[in-house]
Amino acid sequence: MERAIIIAAVFLLLSLQTAATAAAAAGVGRRRVTRRRPPPTLATRRHYATSLQVPRAGDDAASSSSSVPPAVQYETRRYTQRLDHFNSLPSSYATFQQRYLINDTFWGGRSRTAPIFLYAGNEGDIDLFTNNTGFMWEAAPRFRAMLVFVEHRYYGESMPFGGTREAAFRDAATKGYLTVTQALADYASFVLSLKANLSVPAAPVVVFGGSYGGMLAAWMRLKYPHVVMGAVASSAPILSFYGIVDPYAFYDRINDDYKSESKNCYDVLRKSWDVLDDALATKEGQAQLRRTFNMCNGSSVWDIPSLLENAMVEAAMTDYPTTSGFLTPLPAYPVRAMCRAIDARHQQAAASTSTSGSGNDDGNNSSSSTALLLLSEQVRDAMNVYYNHTGGAACFRAEEDDDPYGLYDGWNWQACTEVMVMAYGVRDGTVLQPAPFNFTEVVDDCRNVTGLPPRPFWIETEFGGYDIANVLKKSASNIIFFNGLRDPWSTGGVLKSISDSIIALVEPKGAHHVDLRFSSKEDPEWLKKVRVKETRIIARWLKQYYSDEGIAT
Amino acid sequence: MERAIIIAAVFLLLSLQTAATAAAAAGVGRRRVTRRRPPPTLATRRHYATSLQVPRAGDDAASSSSSVPPAVQYETRRYTQRLDHFNSLPSSYATFQQRYLINDTFWGGRSRTAPIFLYAGNEGDIDLFTNNTGFMWEAAPRFRAMLVFVEHRYYGESMPFGGTREAAFRDAATKGYLTVTQALADYASFVLSLKANLSVPAAPVVVFGGSYGGMLAAWMRLKYPHVVMGAVASSAPILSFYGIVDPYAFYDRINDDYKSESKNCYDVLRKSWDVLDDALATKEGQAQLRRTFNMCNGSSVWDIPSLLENAMVEAAMTDYPTTSGFLTPLPAYPVRAMCRAIDARHQQAAASTSTSGSGNDDGNNSSSSTALLLLSEQVRDAMNVYYNHTGGAACFRAEEDDDPYGLYDGWNWQACTEVMVMAYGVRDGTVLQPAPFNFTEVVDDCRNVTGLPPRPFWIETEFGGYDIANVLKKSASNIIFFNGLRDPWSTGGVLKSISDSIIALVEPKGAHHVDLRFSSKEDPEWLKKVRVKETRIIARWLKQYYSDEGIAT
Repeated sequence: MERAIIIAAVFLLLSLQTAATAAAAAGVGRRRVTRRRPPPTLATRRHYATSLQVPRAGDDAASSSSSVPPAVQYETRRYTQRLDHFNSLPSSYATFQQRYLINDTFWGGRSRTAPIFLYAGNEGDIDLFTNNTGFMWEAAPRFRAMLVFVEHRYYGESMPFGGTREAAFRDAATKGYLTVTQALADYASFVLSLKANLSVPAAPVVVFGGSYGGMLAAWMRLKYPHVVMGAVASSAPILSFYGIVDPYAFYDRINDDYKSESKNCYDVLRKSWDVLDDALATKEGQAQLRRTFNMCNGSSVWDIPSLLENAMVEAAMTDYPTTSGFLTPLPAYPVRAMCRAIDARHQQAAASTSTSGSGNDDGNNSSSSTALLLLSEQVRDAMNVYYNHTGGAACFRAEEDDDPYGLYDGWNWQACTEVMVMAYGVRDGTVLQPAPFNFTEVVDDCRNVTGLPPRPFWIETEFGGYDIANVLKKSASNIIFFNGLRDPWSTGGVLKSISDSIIALVEPKGAHHVDLRFSSKEDPEWLKKVRVKETRIIARWLKQYYSDEGIAT
Repeated sequence: MERAIIIAAVFLLLSLQTAATAAAAAGVGRRRVTRRRPPPTLATRRHYATSLQVPRAGDDAASSSSSVPPAVQYETRRYTQRLDHFNSLPSSYATFQQRYLINDTFWGGRSRTAPIFLYAGNEGDIDLFTNNTGFMWEAAPRFRAMLVFVEHRYYGESMPFGGTREAAFRDAATKGYLTVTQALADYASFVLSLKANLSVPAAPVVVFGGSYGGMLAAWMRLKYPHVVMGAVASSAPILSFYGIVDPYAFYDRINDDYKSESKNCYDVLRKSWDVLDDALATKEGQAQLRRTFNMCNGSSVWDIPSLLENAMVEAAMTDYPTTSGFLTPLPAYPVRAMCRAIDARHQQAAASTSTSGSGNDDGNNSSSSTALLLLSEQVRDAMNVYYNHTGGAACFRAEEDDDPYGLYDGWNWQACTEVMVMAYGVRDGTVLQPAPFNFTEVVDDCRNVTGLPPRPFWIETEFGGYDIANVLKKSASNIIFFNGLRDPWSTGGVLKSISDSIIALVEPKGAHHVDLRFSSKEDPEWLKKVRVKETRIIARWLKQYYSDEGIAT
């Protein structure tokens, strides 16, 4: 879902940018509450490239407590995968090489019928998830589990049509095989083949996944219970679809996150959009922004609103309790850190102006200029927290066309064909710019992206969602749904346990699949406890499995 | 599965015919225990056309107690269905008109959230199943259920590519969308659309099906529990796949059926193949067969073995306790009737020859000729039971290319691409000609039929089957698996209850989906009880459903 949030944010970002540009050109006033969202074209994602840095050995972030430890060792293999599982057309029989990473150093082996822990790869290079799913690495020794991370078709190196990204993404006739159902069938075929090759037909398989990978993990347990005997679905917004979720819920949650930190932070951020728009509408304002924000060559002050919003959304999603480096190097609790930066600047300003008046913006030119200066410094400091935690960035860079983890080509397609998560609307009066939800526009915009009719109801048709508790309590078992309530994606998650084996673990202070991250000395107690709970639940599933199968352990 | 049995039988039939012809030509001896099975091409099915007569008003059979009552009234409608649910290729978005038959005269309506009973159409015109699924018609008033019978894609009038059979079956590039998963997704999409159009989102849907339709019903409950809240899967051989079922089990059961009737019948049928082969190998033998069997113009004595085997297999499958007309007009318990015909002829012969010797076949020419005469009269009388129950047929007809219910084009394709039910092997010493099972040959033969690599493991990958009890007891509910043990397809059925809501109803005297047939005054007690049980189980599911949903009833 890393990418989903990016797209959702991207919608807003480009709209902000476009609207701001248009406003500046036309000299129209502020408060553009109705605007058309642009589709998530490739061009709209350049703003995010700077945030997509994953820690590796040698990186700054890798030396932090949340870095990837040397334990992450694996062999890279390929599986010859069928292009189209669901038809018998001659073209369906084409194959491609699906990459998977495997580690059997902890594995208890055939004689013990030891388990296989499978990560259901999501929208990116499989190494990204392999390196960031420490929970599996840390649990493997206890369970004597084999670790397998399988890459999602059309991401990383698992490209149909000859293996190159260019060929795979040539047009709709090649991209059209990038669907959730095909990916799940890939995993089912792969697992059964792997077990057959290892001669362990009875080895239990537990599937893990975070974000879109968590959706895949849950859906795999629902659709292929004979292949995986349990699923750990972390921050899986399987209910984020039209007609089930409130489409405003995603940004409402982000608003709540910032609101919870301080009244000043909340007020500043709510005010910031109009102030920035006003500033961008005048040469004086632009000049002042240029003085406050050190923009890199190729970027401009027009990029500030989108950079701010991106930082706010991503920080909320990855509001981890420790320093982290999943999307970008970040301090612990980055939302709090951003608010503290805003508040610190506010207090400093208040102290220095305490003798000159109340500090209220009374509308005259000078105080308006003072207000702009204060607000832009506050925004800049908050952005510094997000974009420059390591202190290595000399300037704010908005434009880059880099996609180191191969997220965009695929996810833009998926999010506009079938995985149409409804995280769109922004209400008036929040910390983000208002953007009324308009389903027809979402569909139209997506049609423009793909050239094909979007299928907003397909995921619900195939996987359900409506009345999920009553349905799943009778037709499923062995699923952990973890959600951290700081994470806006938790608004589409399963937040109540459904049965004694479909268990919702909900953490008010948790962020996006925080449970799956490597443990750290900084981890708070609640996080340690979540992982202990998950471990115990998995152990219970396995115990029951071995008992059912009559396998001595 | 009507067609599956036909195909399985067809394999044997053509092999018999071919082998017999070859033997006659080459003058080789009897006992051809190894033979290659021909693929189920269109040409091989002509032997069966005569048996595919379904009772309709005005037919002879329709006047019997098992005929279709006037209650069968419905409206025919069409649903615009997507061609390919699982890809987003431009070609996937094509649509076709899917036929469904609907009756709402019993329906309790929206205010009661009354149930919908859905028949999951299988491999033929939907009217065939509508007219032969009396259980649904008879249960509807009690449950105030709406009745909906939806036709399977590529059968009847539900033809993609413009609506004609010719276009739909042009080649693999058109036929390739004929798959189980597409059919199930059709039904899911259709049901959700129907409920939306009726404004009854909460109306419970119970899916019914017999044979392949029973497989679809069970799989639909497994894969779409949010769409159907229960399934009545009658005679659904979901375990008849390679590696799960004993491939000899199907014909073993047929052997048991005849063996259970009388020792004489069993002995005569076991002997008959060699005797017929020997007779066909000489001009004298052929002449005697011509005198005994009145073959129609265009048919010949060479057709006798295949006609006999077809009659034996179909009679076993449809060994109903009442007169019936599902595949052909038949007396009650046709296996018994065939054996009684054989035994009666035997007793008559024994009485007339009781003074001339022991009746043993001692090998000399005269007694061999006597033996041939007796055996061919016995076989003829048995065949008369099957092919001429109504007494209207003047001769035995083997060749006809009629396909009134549109079964063959589609099922030949399905059975050789993915629904590769393993009902093939015939052991030595049974009532049928031996045919050792050879998996490689089955696969090769199917490849020749379709021109594509068969996928014998796909159904197990997609739907499971291995270790089914342990899997389903945790991941499914609300399924009735009915099987009658006289039915050879019961060898691939679920014969033990898995949980308190996945219930196996097994009747030693039952035949192929006998429970779903219209009730009759002739029905034995066990059959009445089965239907009462099924009705009670469905009532329990619905009660629980309304309680879970908080709907007053």
